Amino acid sequence: MPLVRIFHPAGHDRSYSSALSKGVHRALVSAFGVPEDDFFQIITEHQAGTGLLSPETFLGIAHSADLVIVQITCAEGRTADQKKALFSAIAGNLGTDASVPEADVLINLIETRRENWSFGNGEAQFA
Amino acid sequence: MPLVRIFHPAGHDRSYSSALSKGVHRALVSAFGVPEDDFFQIITEHQAGTGLLSPETFLGIAHSADLVIVQITCAEGRTADQKKALFSAIAGNLGTDASVPEADVLINLIETRRENWSFGNGEAQFA
Amino acid sequence: MPLVRIFHPAGHDRSYSSALSKGVHRALVSAFGVPEDDFFQIITEHQAGTGLLSPETFLGIAHSADLVIVQITCAEGRTADQKKALFSAIAGNLGTDASVPEADVLINLIETRRENWSFGNGEAQFA
Repeated sequence: MPLVRIFHPAGHDRSYSSALSKGVHRALVSAFGVPEDDFFQIITEHQAGTGLLSPETFLGIAHSADLVIVQITCAEGRTADQKKALFSAIAGNLGTDASVPEADVLINLIETRRENWSFGNGEAQFA
Repeated sequence: MPLVRIFHPAGHDRSYSSALSKGVHRALVSAFGVPEDDFFQIITEHQAGTGLLSPETFLGIAHSADLVIVQITCAEGRTADQKKALFSAIAGNLGTDASVPEADVLINLIETRRENWSFGNGEAQFA
Repeated sequence: MPLVRIFHPAGHDRSYSSALSKGVHRALVSAFGVPEDDFFQIITEHQAGTGLLSPETFLGIAHSADLVIVQITCAEGRTADQKKALFSAIAGNLGTDASVPEADVLINLIETRRENWSFGNGEAQFA
């Protein structure tokens, strides 16, 4: 039940955005065991430097103007190892599919209770 | 103290967006007992299929290009029954007020501590 | 490791947005002890009254059409006193730097585990 937000820099064509979308989803399927059809994403583009701001370097990792931010709201309960596997898979996929440097992928997870979701019909399918 | 995000597909007129806004708020008032004037929302529109992505079907529920996503950050402490009542009220109101099919309403709650809010003046009114 | 979202009303020039950005970051550095180069923000503008909605008054605090909303996802573990100091510093800085009335600053914190972050290279730097 992830809800995925992808914030990417402006100036890319539509195939880039689509590649980000698919790369993140494939990582969720492989690392978190999310069903293929559990696919809900909101993707927006932002002007690097004014709308999407990042430091030149943090923790010794250099960021370019092509930083992509992925924020995923998901159910609680994954282990630290699963999270590490997810981060690795996302960065790997975005590199392979959309040529995003691995240094330029920032990821954050927000975990919520399973009862906090409705996937339609006004019902809490996982309560 | 909810902060409401509504993500809706592009191509609707302003009365549609206003109906979504009012429908979600009315549900928060009725199901969560939120005060009428505790009304903070950010509403954005997104291109279905590129900016707002959803599966044709998940959990047996079919989604059209008119999927609306409602993400609400609120204080922790509501019961599962209150959450169910909220989901039902939101989907019902959006159907009645904005003709959104009940299948096309995805809702997610993010719960935070009461001390995590400032409603102005730089103070934590609920700490 | 905060990820900062700033939602501000449309109709201001770029120096306004930049002042909001710097004011929030300076507050995080002073009140939360965030490193200077731990600087990740997404800033968007919204039409007051249609895209960014707020009540005339809540908790006795009057809001104008210039309400700014700051939502910060950060690591868990700060004390209530640190949060109060952050709220006070943000409202103070936005008033001084961008002439935002203190009543018009709404702030919300979403806390997550330290293992829920990747700052690049597909690694969980704080796990």
